[in-house]
Amino acid sequence: MKQREGSDEAKRRAGSSAAEAITDGDVVGLGTGSTAAWAIRALGRRVDAGLDVRGIPTSYQSRQLAREASIPIVTLEDALPDVAIDGADQVAGTDLIKGGGAAHAREKIVDTAADRFLVVVDETKLADALEAPVPIELLPDAVPVVSEAVRSLGGSPELRIATRKDGPVVTDNGNVVLDSAFGSIDDPAALADELSTIPGVVEHGLFVDLADEIHVGTESGVDVLR
Amino acid sequence: MKQREGSDEAKRRAGSSAAEAITDGDVVGLGTGSTAAWAIRALGRRVDAGLDVRGIPTSYQSRQLAREASIPIVTLEDALPDVAIDGADQVAGTDLIKGGGAAHAREKIVDTAADRFLVVVDETKLADALEAPVPIELLPDAVPVVSEAVRSLGGSPELRIATRKDGPVVTDNGNVVLDSAFGSIDDPAALADELSTIPGVVEHGLFVDLADEIHVGTESGVDVLR
Repeated sequence: MKQREGSDEAKRRAGSSAAEAITDGDVVGLGTGSTAAWAIRALGRRVDAGLDVRGIPTSYQSRQLAREASIPIVTLEDALPDVAIDGADQVAGTDLIKGGGAAHAREKIVDTAADRFLVVVDETKLADALEAPVPIELLPDAVPVVSEAVRSLGGSPELRIATRKDGPVVTDNGNVVLDSAFGSIDDPAALADELSTIPGVVEHGLFVDLADEIHVGTESGVDVLR
Repeated sequence: MKQREGSDEAKRRAGSSAAEAITDGDVVGLGTGSTAAWAIRALGRRVDAGLDVRGIPTSYQSRQLAREASIPIVTLEDALPDVAIDGADQVAGTDLIKGGGAAHAREKIVDTAADRFLVVVDETKLADALEAPVPIELLPDAVPVVSEAVRSLGGSPELRIATRKDGPVVTDNGNVVLDSAFGSIDDPAALADELSTIPGVVEHGLFVDLADEIHVGTESGVDVLR
């Protein structure tokens, strides 16, 4: 399913709004994707202005952005995040689908470890119910059996193919991704548990009841949903 | 916990017994470890004698042994296993702890995919309740947060350190292992589900209610538990 894409301006507003919520001394989980990138840049400007924070990147991309923005980088071995800022591919209530950037495994590790999790999206990502395909990161050898397990749960798995290399997308963790459409997901928590227990699955993109605030960038401003 | 180790003779008897259960045309999941290795060698002798089987290895080790034994090798993309033969570190009823060889992620993929799963162990592996440390394969970055999650479930996680390289053991999948002692495990199914949902966990070594037969090698023969 190809979603309508929000404007850069709406994404920038969402990212800036979340960056404004960071306070001095915070350790901040730094999400991945185009909207989280705006939050990292906005946080960098606050660091330039004297804010004392440290960032925990969730991907190669967010680590590079944090370096460019002069945000001091630490790892989960140094500190646990007080707050995480991250994007989402679809939002319904406090439930998310993530993984369009194939970074959802490390994102879930960091976002779950944070005391507070701020989601940044433009308004095209809001939905009444989750219905986007769920990205599932899995061990490469497990594609046939995980595909079968996904089908038995009513899903339609599709191996994510790369465009700048031959063959599948390979994640930062060396794994592959099955984008798995389930139609409208009635019970995200139940599906999340089912997917987690499939042998070979490393992490799926359902983030159930983890979000504390949703910063929604619109064409005219920002709505913060709590 | 260092277990008493069974004799090579008991392990050989268990492996041979399971290899005898394979029938012409079977696709066979080939487990990892010292007892599964005896099964692979015994199966190889049956192939030499004309048995028509194909093997799906669960690790680098079992692939090499299958080659040496002249068992034709296929992958899960070619065929699903009719039967899998695999060892275990501890057995209580039909529940197992596996992962002493750090191959439990691929083993669980193959063993779960098989129509029948035959476990091969010597009698020192039998217990009334599972109490060995549970090996948990996880993404390297997730060690601090998974350790904390394991502790919150009452476990004592310990990063498995290598002896022929500096630092931790790295699995065939490029991950690390936390050996996590929980004492005597009252409800393996519940713990298995809890561990599966921790972000960063790739696969844990609890194999709950998967085994169809346990071939137990003793000093004098083999007991087959069904």
